Amino acid sequence: MIRQSSCEVHPWEIREIELDLDVLEQMESVLALSNGHIGMRANLDEGEPHGMPGTYLNGVYEAHPLPYAEPAYGDPEAGQTVVNITDGKVIRLLVDDEPFDVRYGELRSHKRVLDMRAGTLSRETVWRSPAGQAVRLRSVRLVSLVQRAVAAIHFEVEPLEAPARLVIQSELVANLQMPKPQHRDPRAARALESPLVAEHAGQHGERVSLVHQTRASRLRVGAAMDHLIEGTEATECAAEAAGDLGRLTVTGDVSEGGTLGIVKFLAYGWSAQRSLPSVLDQVEAALAEARHTGWEGLLAGQRDALDEFWSRADVVLDGDPELQQAVRFGLFHAMQASARAEQRAIPAKGLTGPGYDGHAFWDTETFVLPMLTYSVPDAARDALLWRHSTLALARKRAAELGLRGAAFPWRTIGGEECSGYWPAGTAAFHVTADVADAVVRYLDATEDSAFERYAGVELLVESARLWASLGHHDPADGFRIAGVTGPDEYSAVADNNVYTNLMAQRNLVAAADAAERNQEAAEALGVDDAETAVWRKAAEAMVVPWDEQLGVHPQAEGFTRHQEWDFEAMDSESYPLLLHFPYFDLYRKQVTKQADLVLALHLRGDAFSDEEKARDFEYYERRTVRDSSLSACTQAVLAAEVGHVELAYDYFGEAALMDLHDLEHNAADGVHIASLAGAWIAAVAGFGGMRDHGGALEFAPRLPEDLGRLSFRLLYRGRRLQVEVKDDAASYTLLSGEPLEVRHYGEPLRMTSGEPVSRDVPAPPERERPSQPPGREPRERQRAWEETASQ
Amino acid sequence: MIRQSSCEVHPWEIREIELDLDVLEQMESVLALSNGHIGMRANLDEGEPHGMPGTYLNGVYEAHPLPYAEPAYGDPEAGQTVVNITDGKVIRLLVDDEPFDVRYGELRSHKRVLDMRAGTLSRETVWRSPAGQAVRLRSVRLVSLVQRAVAAIHFEVEPLEAPARLVIQSELVANLQMPKPQHRDPRAARALESPLVAEHAGQHGERVSLVHQTRASRLRVGAAMDHLIEGTEATECAAEAAGDLGRLTVTGDVSEGGTLGIVKFLAYGWSAQRSLPSVLDQVEAALAEARHTGWEGLLAGQRDALDEFWSRADVVLDGDPELQQAVRFGLFHAMQASARAEQRAIPAKGLTGPGYDGHAFWDTETFVLPMLTYSVPDAARDALLWRHSTLALARKRAAELGLRGAAFPWRTIGGEECSGYWPAGTAAFHVTADVADAVVRYLDATEDSAFERYAGVELLVESARLWASLGHHDPADGFRIAGVTGPDEYSAVADNNVYTNLMAQRNLVAAADAAERNQEAAEALGVDDAETAVWRKAAEAMVVPWDEQLGVHPQAEGFTRHQEWDFEAMDSESYPLLLHFPYFDLYRKQVTKQADLVLALHLRGDAFSDEEKARDFEYYERRTVRDSSLSACTQAVLAAEVGHVELAYDYFGEAALMDLHDLEHNAADGVHIASLAGAWIAAVAGFGGMRDHGGALEFAPRLPEDLGRLSFRLLYRGRRLQVEVKDDAASYTLLSGEPLEVRHYGEPLRMTSGEPVSRDVPAPPERERPSQPPGREPRERQRAWEETASQ
Repeated sequence: MIRQSSCEVHPWEIREIELDLDVLEQMESVLALSNGHIGMRANLDEGEPHGMPGTYLNGVYEAHPLPYAEPAYGDPEAGQTVVNITDGKVIRLLVDDEPFDVRYGELRSHKRVLDMRAGTLSRETVWRSPAGQAVRLRSVRLVSLVQRAVAAIHFEVEPLEAPARLVIQSELVANLQMPKPQHRDPRAARALESPLVAEHAGQHGERVSLVHQTRASRLRVGAAMDHLIEGTEATECAAEAAGDLGRLTVTGDVSEGGTLGIVKFLAYGWSAQRSLPSVLDQVEAALAEARHTGWEGLLAGQRDALDEFWSRADVVLDGDPELQQAVRFGLFHAMQASARAEQRAIPAKGLTGPGYDGHAFWDTETFVLPMLTYSVPDAARDALLWRHSTLALARKRAAELGLRGAAFPWRTIGGEECSGYWPAGTAAFHVTADVADAVVRYLDATEDSAFERYAGVELLVESARLWASLGHHDPADGFRIAGVTGPDEYSAVADNNVYTNLMAQRNLVAAADAAERNQEAAEALGVDDAETAVWRKAAEAMVVPWDEQLGVHPQAEGFTRHQEWDFEAMDSESYPLLLHFPYFDLYRKQVTKQADLVLALHLRGDAFSDEEKARDFEYYERRTVRDSSLSACTQAVLAAEVGHVELAYDYFGEAALMDLHDLEHNAADGVHIASLAGAWIAAVAGFGGMRDHGGALEFAPRLPEDLGRLSFRLLYRGRRLQVEVKDDAASYTLLSGEPLEVRHYGEPLRMTSGEPVSRDVPAPPERERPSQPPGREPRERQRAWEETASQ
Repeated sequence: MIRQSSCEVHPWEIREIELDLDVLEQMESVLALSNGHIGMRANLDEGEPHGMPGTYLNGVYEAHPLPYAEPAYGDPEAGQTVVNITDGKVIRLLVDDEPFDVRYGELRSHKRVLDMRAGTLSRETVWRSPAGQAVRLRSVRLVSLVQRAVAAIHFEVEPLEAPARLVIQSELVANLQMPKPQHRDPRAARALESPLVAEHAGQHGERVSLVHQTRASRLRVGAAMDHLIEGTEATECAAEAAGDLGRLTVTGDVSEGGTLGIVKFLAYGWSAQRSLPSVLDQVEAALAEARHTGWEGLLAGQRDALDEFWSRADVVLDGDPELQQAVRFGLFHAMQASARAEQRAIPAKGLTGPGYDGHAFWDTETFVLPMLTYSVPDAARDALLWRHSTLALARKRAAELGLRGAAFPWRTIGGEECSGYWPAGTAAFHVTADVADAVVRYLDATEDSAFERYAGVELLVESARLWASLGHHDPADGFRIAGVTGPDEYSAVADNNVYTNLMAQRNLVAAADAAERNQEAAEALGVDDAETAVWRKAAEAMVVPWDEQLGVHPQAEGFTRHQEWDFEAMDSESYPLLLHFPYFDLYRKQVTKQADLVLALHLRGDAFSDEEKARDFEYYERRTVRDSSLSACTQAVLAAEVGHVELAYDYFGEAALMDLHDLEHNAADGVHIASLAGAWIAAVAGFGGMRDHGGALEFAPRLPEDLGRLSFRLLYRGRRLQVEVKDDAASYTLLSGEPLEVRHYGEPLRMTSGEPVSRDVPAPPERERPSQPPGREPRERQRAWEETASQ
């Protein structure tokens, strides 16, 4: 748990005002910088103390065998684990005779600021060495959103009370010794020892480069650094490089009030195919460009990119500064994880830590891409193009499983299935419908017909083929999908999971529509009328189980006949249940880890009546323990829709504060990108009531009492929209683009440029607040913020 | 596949008349000797060539970590694998300058005979060395059924054409180098390298002893040998022992027609607790007793024990010599696996090979114990006492799983759960009801009230407690058991598996009855009236799914709505399916590996109407691929009951010939004890139509056309019964004991001593022969035998 007193609330910044070594590892994730290609944990410049050192390149993983006590046909044999690559963040400092280390001497003041408009992590520390020498250290770090391969650090030391002999060692270090994992949480990463094999170490002037190859996966990784020295004439510099270490040593005698500083430019690149000279040239060229742009140029580019991002994506909340900060924090990290991912995966932890082995899951499409689609559509497109680039692997996997079309992996870095426990991995076929859903959403929101022709049709067709082969028509002609796992990880291998079936239904129809719209592309894929007819028939006949007796949807067949979980016997130590109960027990009882049927109520809200939504929501509220970070935002959306606005507010708080408050106690392994992007969903789909079923935009906004105003922006079919919600009215403004018709509470509303259109917000239906499992109620948002504010 | 031409059919012997190196490994299993404590594969005396060397001591295993790609709470962490212990079978021979090795020189004749009345494996080989020296080698081997720790070998060489210099090396060898496994079949054993650590090697006269300890499981294993030399005065002997090798070398010059021979006495012992001197004393004492009894004495004791066994257990068949042989072979191996197991497990492969890592499964109680209960009840009792001895572990496992009572392991040697894939292991809770069912059967058949008080009540009570905590009453008050795996391994984690629910029902009622009969024992276990009322209520309310539309029982809820397996797309290479299809695909379709619902029709036949049985049997016939050896015998029983007598005959043949014909291509790893004991079930419960529901014996015999007569014996409540079935009539004889009432086709029939009572056998109902999956029909028994006979 991150103590709130060590951080300060600010609308645009995350401010750490005290260095708490107990949460160092968590703060390394929270304050991490990334552009989706390079990721740097917020390790201290001097390298130690550290929680977990981490520098990542999207797509660089090490392969390792996946072991099985009882191997079976179809088990994936190789796993992939994100690699901590060559660390270029390290800048060590010697003050007189002593290494700068906050664990020794006296730390007089400490402040780190993640500035979400500047795109920098800055630090200011005043330290007195054990021998009594006081220095101020300032550093500013960025991972460039403009120059994809580039990061840079400005580092400066100032003796405060007496002249000092200073030595700055700026390093590139590979195969950093990693701390031993303290816990055996299955969600943590596998430990890799020395995954990098040195291939090249070179030095020229203040420039140093290292090239390594991963031991088993044979990926070539290049890292290079160059420097500008800000010192006196007497400052001496020496660079060296060998094996796993490159180093520039800067030595100077500095009087009090004077400074010794460096600007460190870093460039990274990797390739599975290119030669050593080619990778080396690539990183040295990127480095040259960075140096040419200069520190100020990089800073300016960073700010411009963020100005543009915020102008499209910002969500403004009045009345809850902590949540305002948190929502922006979520948007910022989701942007960082995807901005320059460019046809690589967006991992569950972004590039902020090794959690889940650096794998990407369905989270990307379901929780991150909605925000990107309406805010940074190019990044959404790139993420879908990554899926498209893995189609050959997904087709191969489907064939291995005896299926047609494409089966996207449950977890992966490179596109290969890496799940080593199939009931919660391979069987969760919904990931493939989630990809299709993201394609549909992207196409609806952008009308990007080039993408549709090049990749969209193929993604939809191959995913529809999967469903057509995975399901079957029963004697009564119902189309059934048996033995699969839905989103809820406390259930598995069940028949007719409502979420899966409804998402497959959307997938099948969308594929048929897309094939008919794009005859040439469809023909190239061998689609004919007979095949689209099969898809439409399956979609029409899709079985959606219903419990007549209880008047609710079982999340899968039989669910509502299962035993109730004995929540009374639990205490706070019992959660997350997966660490204390066997899957067999979780699977067979009415306990859900996360929104499953409730997620269907959101994403396929068009398939349920209002009354069903209210009853279903209430039913699953009582059984959902939220041991997953992928739940609160969806519960917020449905709570808002069915009228529990204050409950929605509580869930919104949870989704947005997942990492800032380390609610799941594993932010140390990286932030939860999906939950953070989910804060946008909670705001926009929850309080904004936005839905996009069937290519039409609708809104049904409503706010909790404490929020005076919610304002958000959307990009939609070449237009910029702004929606502003207040207690009793909502106004819709077309900032640019052609007129557009949307709906407000079902009523059509035409937006024309520049003129806000206002509508009343009706009162929500009166319903009793549903209950949650004892002890698993979300924290009441109002009180939570008051407590923080009064501290 | 074992070529039939290499073996000869004989009513009491298995005769190998040709040495086929391609099936050496299979024959090592088929001809293996065991007494349930010691097991010796039929490796050639000279050690090589070998398929797989194997000497086993029941209960001696090595522990190893069970790996998981994604570990989860409740996963068993340690596996157990049977260890190939110190090999005392090895007797090497040097003929002049050349080692006796059938791969070199000329093998003039070869014959091995497993004599099922003598309890010996004898061998006669005539061999001409590459240098032209011809010798006849005779050996006879036994594992004593009388002296549990003892085995013995009589070994003799005779030069045939010229005087020969002979050297016999009689050995004890530990950590034998094992052949590399050629295949990666998950059912095969894990390879262990040098699992034994030498602790002691001693020698005195012709006596040698070795003591080792297993590396991780720390079990101490002692082996000792002593010898009688049958040679001339000039014969020289020298013994030595060190590390992993003990050896007696016997050297003699023997003229043609003369012989050089030895009798080798072997003794084995092990302990998890006792000290080295104690284990050493134990084996040397056993050895002294063996030597005292002498070779002829051991032979005589062996024959006496088998005479007694066959007088109780023999099954006589007229009209099918191959099947007659096979049924006795089955009885013999089932007896060997259990005779002196004495509160150790009866592993699935007995002690004939390392298949399934040497683990015991539910097979023991369900397929082996019925035969033992009615033929060798003491062995049945001992097997149940073994389960009883593991109750503390089973209680611990239940607690780990959040359950009450005892959860017996799916697979184990020592009692700990060793299944590393829970959907097909831990979730198969029916094993616990199977143990209870075996207790009920044993108590009904023996009226062994001492056992009941000491162990029976506790086994029933703790197993009933498991079911009471595993199931729950639904709102309509039905008692449901969700998320478990039934016998069929091509389905898993389903709700209300009919077999499991009905067996649990029997368990619950039996526990309540036993507790009421044994108030003192029950009170000691904390059972009160409230608890037995809970059990009876659960049993009464037990849910048994029924498919109204199809008029059949789904083997578990939803099964009959699953997709049909596409058998048309299969060829003979597609089986066993588990090696070619992922579990996810098998689980979600209507394909069954083995009798599941059909096993319920047998063991809980009292819960079904005749019409239901006929319909259900036909339904599952079409979907059962028999990739398990635990199916044919049950299908034989039901086929006979519902009137498909010829089909029953075919299945009977398959069950009985499983290993003699190596039908599953894995007899090399050991014989299938359950299938072999299942041949008795097919004969007695199938053609004899015997049922024992509710403590009453009934018979409804009927024979296939080719079998002229079936005769079998039973021990029942202190009586000896004989049942003889012919085409049109059955006669029942009470050989000894008090008068008894049984039923013949439902009609009461009173047996009094010595007087056969005859009754007509009605014609079976006329029904169309059901079909099986294409290519998976059982081999037609009549034609099969005719082919063998005509060879």
